[in-house]
Amino acid sequence: MVKVTIKSKVLSKNDQIAQSNRLRLHEKGIRSFNMIGSPGSGKTSLLEAVFQSCGDKANCAVIEGDVKTDNDMQRIAALGVPAVQIQTEGACHLNAEQIESKLENLPLDDTNLLVIENVGNLICPVSYDLGEDCRLIVISVTEGEDKPLKYPSAFISADAIVITKIDLAPYVDVVPQQLKANALSINPNLKVFMTSAKTGEGIDKFADFFYAPDENNIKE
Amino acid sequence: MVKVTIKSKVLSKNDQIAQSNRLRLHEKGIRSFNMIGSPGSGKTSLLEAVFQSCGDKANCAVIEGDVKTDNDMQRIAALGVPAVQIQTEGACHLNAEQIESKLENLPLDDTNLLVIENVGNLICPVSYDLGEDCRLIVISVTEGEDKPLKYPSAFISADAIVITKIDLAPYVDVVPQQLKANALSINPNLKVFMTSAKTGEGIDKFADFFYAPDENNIKE
Repeated sequence: MVKVTIKSKVLSKNDQIAQSNRLRLHEKGIRSFNMIGSPGSGKTSLLEAVFQSCGDKANCAVIEGDVKTDNDMQRIAALGVPAVQIQTEGACHLNAEQIESKLENLPLDDTNLLVIENVGNLICPVSYDLGEDCRLIVISVTEGEDKPLKYPSAFISADAIVITKIDLAPYVDVVPQQLKANALSINPNLKVFMTSAKTGEGIDKFADFFYAPDENNIKE
Repeated sequence: MVKVTIKSKVLSKNDQIAQSNRLRLHEKGIRSFNMIGSPGSGKTSLLEAVFQSCGDKANCAVIEGDVKTDNDMQRIAALGVPAVQIQTEGACHLNAEQIESKLENLPLDDTNLLVIENVGNLICPVSYDLGEDCRLIVISVTEGEDKPLKYPSAFISADAIVITKIDLAPYVDVVPQQLKANALSINPNLKVFMTSAKTGEGIDKFADFFYAPDENNIKE
């Protein structure tokens, strides 16, 4: 019983700050994404591909989350997009308080779209609302068709998923449509995008959604 | 302060049971591996490749850990190797108590090598000793060269790593030797294996280690 009480308090504090983050971003007219995926699923490469092939159409800003290094922040900043890094020093997910503390370091008055790239982990980040409008699961075809069935919480909580590295499908005996079908069997409301950051396939279509998600994705 | 105390108690209880598991396995002459890696890093495929190409040279038994599904247990059992599944129902790692409870369901008197395949997660499982002799990190080339630098704890705590899917290296602009060098920069004592479950490359060499790890890998 003690454990349950403590967990409930921690989540409640996180949820309060998340809601405060959401209100603060909306007051400035900023939409936001929380990108969740395994290590190496291609989250940063997806962002790079969108910025490189479609430009920064929405005055984006990016918060990068990693256990260690600021490699991903450097990659995004190299494209001229404002970016800050959170190094969790061992923690397996970002929390709303970390996001709150980093908002000060971003040019929010000139930003219309905030992208938060979470720590590479398909399980723990799912439990932490950061204040985002849209939760995006990024999963590569190389991870296999059955991952939505094995990690259902991520897919249940998501608004959209991006299946990445589809150029590798012929080499890994994975059928992207089966991966998509498995994801939709867990959550039929998911928007699903198929992309390859390497060949550019599907990047334009994802960018259309990324830069102009429909009104349903703006949370109250 | 309260949080620290509780965490300390939980870890201490886990460590006690882990040590008990280790003694129990050693009394029966059983060596054990704890395989840790991201979702889709190729842990189950590596085991399948070893069992298929080299046979079960050591009377193995396997405990599979997943958030949901018993897919991996089914894959191993189909090869005639005794296997049981732990479904964590949301938890991000296996703990020593779960292993203790499953040992009853395995033919320990006829087993010389126990393989525990942890939940797909490169962060949280690292903190939980399960009673293993050897900790094995499984990482695919598709995850990128920089992952040892971004997730150092996994590599610091490991005895050996297996770099999987090296057949895909030419298609993903990743140099396996650089991934290896990054891992060794974090932990120079790591044994490193390069494998492809698809082509069979490196499986024999890894199997030699798997079936006969040197004495240093038997923990007291």
